[in-house]
Amino acid sequence: VNTHQLQTPALVVDAGGLQHNLDTMAAALPGGRLRPHVKAHKTTALARRQVAAGHRTFTCATICEVEGMAAAGLGDDLLLANEVVDATRLGRVVATGARVTLAVDSEATIDAARDGGVHEVLIDVNVGLPRCGCAPEDAGRLAEMANAKGLSVRGVMGYEGHIVGLPDREQRAHLVEGCMQLLLQAHQAVGGELVSAGGTGTYDLNTWAGEIQAGSYVLMDTAYAQLGLPFVNALTVLATVISVNPAGWAVADCGLKALGMDHGNPRMADGAPVWFCSDEHITFAPTEGSPGYRVGDRVAVVPAHVDPTIAYHQTMHVVDGDAVLESWAVDLRGW
Amino acid sequence: VNTHQLQTPALVVDAGGLQHNLDTMAAALPGGRLRPHVKAHKTTALARRQVAAGHRTFTCATICEVEGMAAAGLGDDLLLANEVVDATRLGRVVATGARVTLAVDSEATIDAARDGGVHEVLIDVNVGLPRCGCAPEDAGRLAEMANAKGLSVRGVMGYEGHIVGLPDREQRAHLVEGCMQLLLQAHQAVGGELVSAGGTGTYDLNTWAGEIQAGSYVLMDTAYAQLGLPFVNALTVLATVISVNPAGWAVADCGLKALGMDHGNPRMADGAPVWFCSDEHITFAPTEGSPGYRVGDRVAVVPAHVDPTIAYHQTMHVVDGDAVLESWAVDLRGW
Repeated sequence: VNTHQLQTPALVVDAGGLQHNLDTMAAALPGGRLRPHVKAHKTTALARRQVAAGHRTFTCATICEVEGMAAAGLGDDLLLANEVVDATRLGRVVATGARVTLAVDSEATIDAARDGGVHEVLIDVNVGLPRCGCAPEDAGRLAEMANAKGLSVRGVMGYEGHIVGLPDREQRAHLVEGCMQLLLQAHQAVGGELVSAGGTGTYDLNTWAGEIQAGSYVLMDTAYAQLGLPFVNALTVLATVISVNPAGWAVADCGLKALGMDHGNPRMADGAPVWFCSDEHITFAPTEGSPGYRVGDRVAVVPAHVDPTIAYHQTMHVVDGDAVLESWAVDLRGW
Repeated sequence: VNTHQLQTPALVVDAGGLQHNLDTMAAALPGGRLRPHVKAHKTTALARRQVAAGHRTFTCATICEVEGMAAAGLGDDLLLANEVVDATRLGRVVATGARVTLAVDSEATIDAARDGGVHEVLIDVNVGLPRCGCAPEDAGRLAEMANAKGLSVRGVMGYEGHIVGLPDREQRAHLVEGCMQLLLQAHQAVGGELVSAGGTGTYDLNTWAGEIQAGSYVLMDTAYAQLGLPFVNALTVLATVISVNPAGWAVADCGLKALGMDHGNPRMADGAPVWFCSDEHITFAPTEGSPGYRVGDRVAVVPAHVDPTIAYHQTMHVVDGDAVLESWAVDLRGW
């Protein structure tokens, strides 16, 4: 199959870039030092490539991701790094023999784990991002409560999500240390084998966590690309030029329903300025001095945020130049 | 089924609001005066409700939408109001007996229609939005070309998308007239029965077009809600509070992968200020003086832009209070 045969818009992964990212991360954080986050790609076939790179433990954000990973035989050690109030579906996954560990940060979420049939939990600790997680000084109490209710507490997690995207590396390094002091303080009270934290932006700076939950590294996006990390943009959305206006713009068939837009507009891989996106269109201008576009041309659009981009697509095509090597189902979508 | 049994995040449509919007539009633009745009909802079951309200002609934005509508028996008169460079799949739909009309704005897209087996086209005219459509003065030439290549030209379309969202009604009214003068000028050269244009923001101001392609009216969103239109917000995303922080915020399970974000953050239906959205979370604060939230509470999130919100979801639930009346597959997703 050639990329010109793909129905557009189409998610396209550069095979070489993907392998570079897998290799680079596996060298920096081998085996269990990385717990790859599947929310970034939602694709069990890509998770298998992460297994081939040496990682057998995974982080998930949704119940669907846990179910899909376990069903694909990738359930050695799945962490749902998120709170749920009904763990019944997770208990069913545990009953199939997969190992599922659930983040908890309150009595209600501890009760949900126990009532749903999940036996292992991690105490989720707030280290500064205003999101989930208990206060560090409350972690010990919650661990005791979980133990008292018959749960096994494997340790702590605490995601420094407010820091992973900061452009200044020195500042990231400084701030992550403060966050991890909070997490280690919680871990002293909680105990257990796991101290889980980090993301692509702090994968090599966070030397306090025992395992890093990075996900974006494997495909990258324009936001993370500004941090000077050793990972390359491996994902684009292939689009077709459907209209060219002599007044100076072109339109391709890749719009708001094919792109995560929370980080703003995508960029064109060829550097052409993007004017705006509509539901099914992107309007852009040829760069000065370029020959311009013709209807039918294929163009590559680089999304600003990979995760919500991928969640719109059913299929991810792995390519080498114009050759489609593999087509993977984005099979972990939904909730 | 009760809404409390729904897995969240869940798309929820208020049955009364939906019916109000259907009735209000059908009174203003009965029957063929409205060609409802299915891109807004991507749901054949909702299109059936539009048929029940008297509309039998539909507008689509993607090949998938045309295929799905025809397969659902809603193919009396489907307009793909968008250009394609390969119409093979549309030709297959035509061969099943459905009526498909395709927008064209260039020789390449005319050739695509002919080569793919689509027999009827509409000349897409640029009326000011920098997107698809030929120059008004070029429409006659393209119509002649289409005729010469054996296609039947049903008329013109020209979407005033740069105007539909302007907050000032007088200004909208003034500017839409200018756009439609361009479209009518093109129509004089093209001929044919159809002059198709308009959207929810101009549905009652655009008195020049023979039919209006409005879609958002049926569910509405926070962006269109600022225009003082007689339609109500009928769609919310139901979410579950999964974490409450004593420092003053709560977190629910409705994030970037459940919300179209190009128009900015959603709002909470109860007025609570939204802090930010992450992939699977929304962080918000209780309004002053409110009792706050508890883990497990259900909250309603009002998306800023309906169309790309719906495209993330597999199912749309029609509710009356806490009762789920029907659950509809969002069956027109993808491309």
